[in-house]
Amino acid sequence: MDERLKKQLAFSLEIDKEKNVLRQTRLSGNGRRENDAEHAWHMAVMAWVLREYAGEEVDMARVMLLCLIHDVVEIDAGDTYAYDEEGLRTRKAREEKAKERIFSLLPEDQKKELSALFEEFETAATPEARFARALDNFQPLLLNDANDGGDWKDHDVDAAAVYGRHRETRRGSEVLWEITERIIREHVRKGHIRE
Amino acid sequence: MDERLKKQLAFSLEIDKEKNVLRQTRLSGNGRRENDAEHAWHMAVMAWVLREYAGEEVDMARVMLLCLIHDVVEIDAGDTYAYDEEGLRTRKAREEKAKERIFSLLPEDQKKELSALFEEFETAATPEARFARALDNFQPLLLNDANDGGDWKDHDVDAAAVYGRHRETRRGSEVLWEITERIIREHVRKGHIRE
Repeated sequence: MDERLKKQLAFSLEIDKEKNVLRQTRLSGNGRRENDAEHAWHMAVMAWVLREYAGEEVDMARVMLLCLIHDVVEIDAGDTYAYDEEGLRTRKAREEKAKERIFSLLPEDQKKELSALFEEFETAATPEARFARALDNFQPLLLNDANDGGDWKDHDVDAAAVYGRHRETRRGSEVLWEITERIIREHVRKGHIRE
Repeated sequence: MDERLKKQLAFSLEIDKEKNVLRQTRLSGNGRRENDAEHAWHMAVMAWVLREYAGEEVDMARVMLLCLIHDVVEIDAGDTYAYDEEGLRTRKAREEKAKERIFSLLPEDQKKELSALFEEFETAATPEARFARALDNFQPLLLNDANDGGDWKDHDVDAAAVYGRHRETRRGSEVLWEITERIIREHVRKGHIRE
């Protein structure tokens, strides 16, 4: 088998491990914890269904791709919970190391391409990245809302932290931000989020 | 909230259930059984990594979208194992009913759009659908190969059935078909697939 294809298949097999990276969010119906691969799939489909609400004109192939690959580095680096301050401090270093190992499985040109996409997402550099990041926040919000704010209650977070985490959604979509605000307000009112 | 957005959010929440539809394929490392959402995510990323091997010119946004949504109907219809003859006979009827219920959660224009995409995939009507279908076969093959053909051994399938299931890959990608043939031959030689 030629070297290029061999590398592409090695990468394809490696990313299977993303299905074992657990997040804090639970599936609807207060189900088990969601994993990164499921989250990425859900975000990508939602991006397509909700594309009319993107704040800027976007190339949907790029949006979906950003959604699909943005968590690949967590195979090594693990998921960092949005309200884990200590974890957030070390996240960048862990993810840089992971990126180098995992993306190096690919042929050089695709390694570069994927690294650039990952950076684009991380830095919210384009309209596509801003919309994908809005979905990265909005997808777990939708599940958590369906589960009576279970994640917030479990971690005893306050409204300032929740607004802080979700504020960026506005850069990607005004409409998704309006829904986000409404959902947060409701869960504060119900006592699922501390004031 | 306006009716259109409400419907789009209801659909977005409903598809969360796809994460509970289990397939026969096991994760690499002889892990737990894979679910439909993980499979769809894996296929879509692999489609992008392996896009240079598509047999015809393809629009990657469409390929990824077909990968992402092709199993949504299994929320109601369940997964039908590729070697389950009885299940395959009733599959069409089960999936038609599921399609009607689940896609009807969306606004009418998106229901039509998604139904058309689903039909495109089912009938392999376009270059994009043929490539997506090749991935639908190739992704579990890659995992099963990594697991020493465990799925084939568990279900005691013979070579004719395995070739029969995978033959269609050739319509989507000559290169993926060559790898498929090589993998099947090797597992027949090792006795993981009956001759």
